[in-house]
Amino acid sequence: MDKVSAESPIGVFDSGVGGLTVAREIMRNLPAEHIVYFGDTARLPYGSKSKETILMFSRQIIRFLQTQDVKAIVIACNTASAFALDTISQEVALPVIGVVKPGARVAARATHNGRIGVIGTEGTVGSHIYRDFIRKIDPQITVIERACPLFVPLVEERWIHDPITRQVAERYLDEMKSQGVDALVLGCTHYPLLRSMIGEVMGEGVTLVNPAYEAAQELKAMLYTNGLANPGTDEKEFPYRFFVSDLAENFKQFANSILPYDVEMTQKIDIEEY
Amino acid sequence: MDKVSAESPIGVFDSGVGGLTVAREIMRNLPAEHIVYFGDTARLPYGSKSKETILMFSRQIIRFLQTQDVKAIVIACNTASAFALDTISQEVALPVIGVVKPGARVAARATHNGRIGVIGTEGTVGSHIYRDFIRKIDPQITVIERACPLFVPLVEERWIHDPITRQVAERYLDEMKSQGVDALVLGCTHYPLLRSMIGEVMGEGVTLVNPAYEAAQELKAMLYTNGLANPGTDEKEFPYRFFVSDLAENFKQFANSILPYDVEMTQKIDIEEY
Repeated sequence: MDKVSAESPIGVFDSGVGGLTVAREIMRNLPAEHIVYFGDTARLPYGSKSKETILMFSRQIIRFLQTQDVKAIVIACNTASAFALDTISQEVALPVIGVVKPGARVAARATHNGRIGVIGTEGTVGSHIYRDFIRKIDPQITVIERACPLFVPLVEERWIHDPITRQVAERYLDEMKSQGVDALVLGCTHYPLLRSMIGEVMGEGVTLVNPAYEAAQELKAMLYTNGLANPGTDEKEFPYRFFVSDLAENFKQFANSILPYDVEMTQKIDIEEY
Repeated sequence: MDKVSAESPIGVFDSGVGGLTVAREIMRNLPAEHIVYFGDTARLPYGSKSKETILMFSRQIIRFLQTQDVKAIVIACNTASAFALDTISQEVALPVIGVVKPGARVAARATHNGRIGVIGTEGTVGSHIYRDFIRKIDPQITVIERACPLFVPLVEERWIHDPITRQVAERYLDEMKSQGVDALVLGCTHYPLLRSMIGEVMGEGVTLVNPAYEAAQELKAMLYTNGLANPGTDEKEFPYRFFVSDLAENFKQFANSILPYDVEMTQKIDIEEY
């Protein structure tokens, strides 16, 4: 812990590559920060797994990130934010930020008619964490939730602008539309990549909330409040390091499609050792 | 090892529930056999992960199955059969049967025009194991392979007879059709559940090969040849036990839709301990 300073990196983790959409927002909004990213590619996806399992995985990953002397941790995965954030925050001496609370807060601010939609994996939606957190902010708000398990594999097929994806989106979002939501939380890290299609299906007048962006904003505020923001004087090396639990070729390809440069130096670690 | 006898159970494992289609064939074709089934639901799917990771997972599972005194092991997962069967067979004193070789053999027998299609996960297809094994049998055969990563989530959504699934199937199978294959290997345990749709898309005259059925036949022959077939005198208890690494509700629901009875007594074990 004594090794941690404002120059220390931010630890970001996710079940796989999806969390890179969160890392990307941190890179954009906090360009002086160093990042250690971990993607649990050996055990992804998290969305269909139980709370107990996700908590065990998250603890292993946090132990690994602590060996990298991170100064703060961002749980980029919605499912892990839903299942593990509260417990982990109590167990770890570092600040821990998830994607759910920032996303819920902004959605509650964005709605005018008090009807918010939330889409995500089965784990996130089944946990009702967005609904519960939005209702804590404003008990009058109605939250309509829907798991969209095909969106992640469709994104990974790169069928982003595709008539099949459009039909899937129409089926998934049909109830949201008929219930007249005016804000929709993209509650899974892959979904911002379908943002334009989802926006088309939902129609104008519906605000799409991207928790990745909101989490980066919360991280920024937290770092400045606590005097932990990197002064940005140490520019001698590439500020991002990527670790995964499985080195499938897929990671690099997909990472390169999300980030604006080549993710060549990805290192594999045995996460079950932590 | 001395505890193993003809009365001992068969160990069957898969990344999740899909391998129950293999267990079901064993139940149908070898009704006197006891089965210990393990589904690695905490770490599924295997299809997008690397050989090294799948081999590590498979070794842990085999160690667990050996604590259950199994007399033989069936690797019900195509990806694990592709990546781990040869190595595992050399490391373990028990007979080990995969789904790939039986499936490949039957496909090679079924084709008349020497053109075979193989569909499966990215892992199975990328390993080219079906192609390589079919060509060992007959180097003249042309094998056309295609990964179909959306089929598993579509089956898990239960969109079995659905216009969206039909369009996905048409896109995936288009090249197979235009290349004129007359035998198609359903190289993933979930795919037999899409059998009728795939059959419609491929049209008459194309033989669909189900490696699950063929593996059960190979197991039967092996057991009789080695005097390991269960005489079926011990009928005092329910002959099937189910273990998983994650107890998500999904497993039971899906298992109950594959098997003709309730899979209530599923036990969770910590597979990373093995």
